[in-house]
Amino acid sequence: MRYELYYWPSIQGRGEFVRLALEEAGADYRDVAREPEARGGGVAALLRLLEGRRLERPPFAPPFLKAGRLLIAQTANILLYLGGRHGLAPAGEAGRLWAHQLQLTIADLVQEIHDTHHPISVELYYEDQRDEARRRAAGFLARRVPRFLGYFEQVMAQNPSGDRHLVGARPSYVDLSLFQIVAGLRYAFPKAMARLERKLPRVVALHDRVAVRPRIAAYLASERRLPFGEEGIFRHYGELDV
Amino acid sequence: MRYELYYWPSIQGRGEFVRLALEEAGADYRDVAREPEARGGGVAALLRLLEGRRLERPPFAPPFLKAGRLLIAQTANILLYLGGRHGLAPAGEAGRLWAHQLQLTIADLVQEIHDTHHPISVELYYEDQRDEARRRAAGFLARRVPRFLGYFEQVMAQNPSGDRHLVGARPSYVDLSLFQIVAGLRYAFPKAMARLERKLPRVVALHDRVAVRPRIAAYLASERRLPFGEEGIFRHYGELDV
Repeated sequence: MRYELYYWPSIQGRGEFVRLALEEAGADYRDVAREPEARGGGVAALLRLLEGRRLERPPFAPPFLKAGRLLIAQTANILLYLGGRHGLAPAGEAGRLWAHQLQLTIADLVQEIHDTHHPISVELYYEDQRDEARRRAAGFLARRVPRFLGYFEQVMAQNPSGDRHLVGARPSYVDLSLFQIVAGLRYAFPKAMARLERKLPRVVALHDRVAVRPRIAAYLASERRLPFGEEGIFRHYGELDV
Repeated sequence: MRYELYYWPSIQGRGEFVRLALEEAGADYRDVAREPEARGGGVAALLRLLEGRRLERPPFAPPFLKAGRLLIAQTANILLYLGGRHGLAPAGEAGRLWAHQLQLTIADLVQEIHDTHHPISVELYYEDQRDEARRRAAGFLARRVPRFLGYFEQVMAQNPSGDRHLVGARPSYVDLSLFQIVAGLRYAFPKAMARLERKLPRVVALHDRVAVRPRIAAYLASERRLPFGEEGIFRHYGELDV
């Protein structure tokens, strides 16, 4: 089965957590909105599904994944589905729920990262909420990042299968997502992260191990990996990096 | 099996979505932090698990549910678990993922509702971010609530099993959660909701039907149902209700 991923074509965004899982799985997939409209791709293809007036199960927002007859939205839900099919999560119920729980905590962190540059409204430019962004980012870096990443450090330290992974004894989609969090936070807040990483040896080591996994390394070196930039979740505004 | 729910004892908060599901299921459960410390309850019992230095699977934040040997956190994850056990979600994979997808969209809305009164930081008082809250709430009511609730209206209209439910032909935990959203938004923003509800006949009808389901009605009339108030997600500040 060839998956079809639908996500905005010019940013990593939330779609990147799905891309990393598909790449690590070696899955056959199309990144539909990045293909030409003439081949049924482009943003037009994404919007057709998003409007979804005839769909039984319309999505609210990208990313969404077509998997045969299924159309699955919400990043963590897509990963829940893929994890079970590609050995990227434990097979048993307890492990599956645990991996998903961690992914939902990552989703909460992603929302807080996004809101550092958009604390007032997603419909206003950053420049129109810069003062509020400064206040929000300062508290985020001082207390929220240490709390979230300290939690993942604790989860690794307490993993009975060893502190190389978040879940069990093997790489999971949660490891891939935490890699992306660290990479993105380093891009957005290099000064703050240089300071914070000193207390996060396991999280940093996990990032480094994921980055050199053969399929992930090949993906990161390819044109399929979009660069970070000032349109996505992780944005580098020097005045917020305190 | 007797479930143990752990959530802050004085607010509805995110725990309320779990309470509604447990009540509709007629499940046997303890609301642990609302019981006396002398009987192993209170916030102390919650904090012992939250610190979780010896747990294999420590939670990041309440609510969490003890179900035999499982300790499950993240509201939507708890409902995913309960839905399958108590007939509060479809049994098949496609329906289960769909219900969960809708619940995750409700979780996104809950976060946006919370941030109307805390746009800058959860660690500051409302009074210290009131100006920012005014700006955020105005955009939220003008564009985000119509978009979210309009989406749920569309989902019901397009449900091939009929427009009385969000998922399939029977009540699910997603219906219960949407009831709570409507009830909470009415409490927080009565003026705005009176205006917005005109375009949401199915969503309003769903709210009304859930409210009179026998177990839900009994719960709402009981002391187990905490009142809305200015400590939870849904807060009534007149200046934000525009």
